[in-house]
Amino acid sequence: MPQLRLALAQINPTVGDIPGNLDQVLTFSKQAHAEGAHVVAFPEMMLTGYPIEDLALRANFVDASRVAVSDLAKTLVEEGLGDLVVVVGYLDCTDDIPDRLGVPKGAPTNAAAVITGGEIATRYFKHHLPNYGVFDEFRWFVPGNVMQVLQVNGIDIGLVICEDIWQDGPSAACAAAETSLLLVLNGSPYDRNKDDVRHELCARRAREGECTLAYVNMIGGQDDLVFEGDSIVVDKAGDILARAGQFTEELLIVDLDLPAATSPMPDPDDRFGGFKVERTVITANPLSLYEPIAHPEIADRLDDFGEVYEAIGMGLRDYVRKNGFRTVLMGVSGGIDSTLVAVIACDAIGSDNVYGVSNPSKWSSEHSRTDAAELARRTGMHLDTVAIAPMVDTFTQAIEIDGLAAENLQARIRAVIWMALSNQHGHLVLACGNKSELAVGYSTIYGDAVGGFAPLKDVPKTLVWELAKWRNASAAARGEVPPIPEGTITKPPSAELSPGQLDSDSLPPYELLDQIIEEYVAKDRGSREIVADGFDKATVEKVIALIDRAEYKRRQYPPGPKVSGRNFGRDWRVPITNRWREKL
Amino acid sequence: MPQLRLALAQINPTVGDIPGNLDQVLTFSKQAHAEGAHVVAFPEMMLTGYPIEDLALRANFVDASRVAVSDLAKTLVEEGLGDLVVVVGYLDCTDDIPDRLGVPKGAPTNAAAVITGGEIATRYFKHHLPNYGVFDEFRWFVPGNVMQVLQVNGIDIGLVICEDIWQDGPSAACAAAETSLLLVLNGSPYDRNKDDVRHELCARRAREGECTLAYVNMIGGQDDLVFEGDSIVVDKAGDILARAGQFTEELLIVDLDLPAATSPMPDPDDRFGGFKVERTVITANPLSLYEPIAHPEIADRLDDFGEVYEAIGMGLRDYVRKNGFRTVLMGVSGGIDSTLVAVIACDAIGSDNVYGVSNPSKWSSEHSRTDAAELARRTGMHLDTVAIAPMVDTFTQAIEIDGLAAENLQARIRAVIWMALSNQHGHLVLACGNKSELAVGYSTIYGDAVGGFAPLKDVPKTLVWELAKWRNASAAARGEVPPIPEGTITKPPSAELSPGQLDSDSLPPYELLDQIIEEYVAKDRGSREIVADGFDKATVEKVIALIDRAEYKRRQYPPGPKVSGRNFGRDWRVPITNRWREKL
Repeated sequence: MPQLRLALAQINPTVGDIPGNLDQVLTFSKQAHAEGAHVVAFPEMMLTGYPIEDLALRANFVDASRVAVSDLAKTLVEEGLGDLVVVVGYLDCTDDIPDRLGVPKGAPTNAAAVITGGEIATRYFKHHLPNYGVFDEFRWFVPGNVMQVLQVNGIDIGLVICEDIWQDGPSAACAAAETSLLLVLNGSPYDRNKDDVRHELCARRAREGECTLAYVNMIGGQDDLVFEGDSIVVDKAGDILARAGQFTEELLIVDLDLPAATSPMPDPDDRFGGFKVERTVITANPLSLYEPIAHPEIADRLDDFGEVYEAIGMGLRDYVRKNGFRTVLMGVSGGIDSTLVAVIACDAIGSDNVYGVSNPSKWSSEHSRTDAAELARRTGMHLDTVAIAPMVDTFTQAIEIDGLAAENLQARIRAVIWMALSNQHGHLVLACGNKSELAVGYSTIYGDAVGGFAPLKDVPKTLVWELAKWRNASAAARGEVPPIPEGTITKPPSAELSPGQLDSDSLPPYELLDQIIEEYVAKDRGSREIVADGFDKATVEKVIALIDRAEYKRRQYPPGPKVSGRNFGRDWRVPITNRWREKL
Repeated sequence: MPQLRLALAQINPTVGDIPGNLDQVLTFSKQAHAEGAHVVAFPEMMLTGYPIEDLALRANFVDASRVAVSDLAKTLVEEGLGDLVVVVGYLDCTDDIPDRLGVPKGAPTNAAAVITGGEIATRYFKHHLPNYGVFDEFRWFVPGNVMQVLQVNGIDIGLVICEDIWQDGPSAACAAAETSLLLVLNGSPYDRNKDDVRHELCARRAREGECTLAYVNMIGGQDDLVFEGDSIVVDKAGDILARAGQFTEELLIVDLDLPAATSPMPDPDDRFGGFKVERTVITANPLSLYEPIAHPEIADRLDDFGEVYEAIGMGLRDYVRKNGFRTVLMGVSGGIDSTLVAVIACDAIGSDNVYGVSNPSKWSSEHSRTDAAELARRTGMHLDTVAIAPMVDTFTQAIEIDGLAAENLQARIRAVIWMALSNQHGHLVLACGNKSELAVGYSTIYGDAVGGFAPLKDVPKTLVWELAKWRNASAAARGEVPPIPEGTITKPPSAELSPGQLDSDSLPPYELLDQIIEEYVAKDRGSREIVADGFDKATVEKVIALIDRAEYKRRQYPPGPKVSGRNFGRDWRVPITNRWREKL
């Protein structure tokens, strides 16, 4: 059978940085060429980054992306890579698209270019545009409806983009056109349960089409999304031939023996699984036999907590780096949330770039202060202490407040200090709240909720504890000092805004709370169904009422990395003004 | 020709409040019946409110809406309104929809029910789902694709929903089915330039279809959208037969003489303009001649500034009311923005419910204090004064800051005071920033940007001045004291955060700034095109760089009423992490 050496470039584009992304494509194309690859594939929307949101509506941005593809074609030849086949995702527009492709003129498309010999050999336009969950692609793109098959080394390769294999149609069309390899470019965001789903999906499409399938995904953080890589090649039985790591930049190279193209050039009127198919012959003849790479990489999977931990770290690191920051600052209370955020930050950007501020009040416990100091000692992060009692006094002398207003005052004074230090020194402030707090509004808006990025925004409190224990255990397993003081993990959680206050005074136990949040938020289930599952009626009513009432706070919360099936933010669009209260 | 008395109920639903919305439908149905109407039409999604966003994805909410329609049918009969034809928008689901309608099962739809004689005579499902601008209807609904024609008094009435007439197709299908009247249910948000567009559109569709057209729209505020009403009936020449006011609750009643139905019952295989059509005969025979209403209302239009002013007031009033607040609080600096917000609030909810707080610092000018006091005197609003010098001192003793950090500190201390008073007394805090500031980030996050609602969020600074002058002139024309002190309008704008500071130290003149913002934000034009229009290159580059860098602040800003063609918020979805900088 004909051979093909395929390279999948699992790399990290930056939204809007077309020159920088182009440089990366060139660098990885050179490496692929040097390693003898015949085809190198890059992720969906590689040249623009992903998702670009309303940048798709700017004509000058579309132009810049199109120019970049043309420039790339020329530069590849200049660099001696003219014989390499480069498949790269980018933003295109239907202006100059042949009428036969049947798409409206002048609209943006989510496209892939096949570049070789200094020319764009063909272009594919994503057919299935996702418009659910975190995706709004009907807002930004028009769908293509013609499949593209490339012939390289005498092998027919079908080319599709991401959602095209999550829904039926395109993969079947490529199978009907008898392609031997289905190449899928992806910008597929991480969530905690997607990993096996991805392999299962690739295996299913491979078996359905009786073809090998190669799936290349990006890595990196983009606002509230994280991309994990996990690029994969499966054979027609669905078995893994090669797999890249998670959250790592890699060029995954695999040698494939694939059936020679059998099918004749399609007639323009032929339909394959309902689709028109265009075939572009790049090289019609198989190469002389060569020695394949002995053992392509099959990376081990991270365990569940390790995966989430890496996702948050990558989201944080890329938000910092891509937005031009170097350092971060957060309030450290000695509690589990700010401690975990600090440790993640130290791992992600180095403890010398992490600044903690401890702001004890008269209600702060002694162990809060010592735990914060111990955290700094163990991690090497910076720690300053600014007591807030003098500020509290000047406010309470000027205005008469008590109860909740007086509790929130303390949280807001802390935030004023953090923001002043941020403005003075250029630190990015991190908000340390978790998903459970954000769900029920157990946080002070403009207080502990301030920040440019919120690493734990999509992490329920119970998972915060699990990640903390996992991080300490990992350190211990490596013979290192666990970074998180044990007391921080074991003590009962408290906001410490009034004497002896505990979270459990206001909220049900977190184990219970997080289950109800999961049912209501992630699954859109109603209170009646949740109670029918056996949860206490009064507790369910209380939790759902708290979630409903806290929407205004969530709208003003900073972005944080999505790690669950449904995050607050892009994937949760609920009106603030909303009187819907289900009757029980 | 057969006669029809048609009532259009231009009313104010609340999102999620199905029982309350149902009550309103019943009340207006009774009134329509009492006035002899044969058909009463309510807005799009009347029973659920609009837009409901992700509530559409909750099965229990869909069920509640469906139950409400059935309940309504029964109650209308119990109330003696069984002969009235009630057309009402609601949320439905395709579970029980006949297979012949060809929609996927189990998906939400944006629907209209035709209720008479205690039954749902037929249902229509919106065909064109807008998914641009402020709309995301592909996320929430599946489209219908069968047109519905009702016969009442022997007159054929086509029934469509909102976007169905903004795009081609449904109106032509109804015309092809020879309907005499096209009835359009709408949830069509206000923007400053839509008014004439709406009449022009209705007139065009009426002329195209050679039919009378009746357009019923809702009123009210919903988070960042405002609905203005402006319900209208045009004859087949496009001339106005009746028109309701803007921002007012009304039952618009009009008598129509319309051609009798001519077309036979359609065969299931017939196509009209490409669509299947179903016809439901409610009453096949014309009524005996009756005396029509002599002069149906044709309301005068508000002038341009009056319209914007009313839109903001309605947005504010409904945010307050529908979210269970009674009172609002804002910092009043003596500047034009906070003064205009205070006056709008006094007009919208009564000056006794408006609390101003003046927070002079050592950089506050004398006229700022006297202007704030004069504002309170003229409007009757409450005014407290809390000087911030003592708080500034305690912070600056604890941390070393200067420059911008010290400026922002003052703004944040003010915000802490407002929020403390809000927590203590239950006031909704209003953010007073305008669109120009929000565009270029000329505001302090967690300082003057705090609040639950931002009335001027979509109002550029130049329009702030115009609205202020308009409000004063309107008062003078009515022989009232103009509420805004003259000095507030004429003095040069200043944040007063450092000695002698003026906005013009940091920003180009607002007349120029607002034009560049309009080109870049509203029109998605690039810097090259804007410079080609004759704007100064360095100024354009500076303004666009400021806009690009301020995205993180906009994400945490409170909602405010959309009054322009493109608002920051729902209609502006730009990544925070974004390195795109157009080369000049």
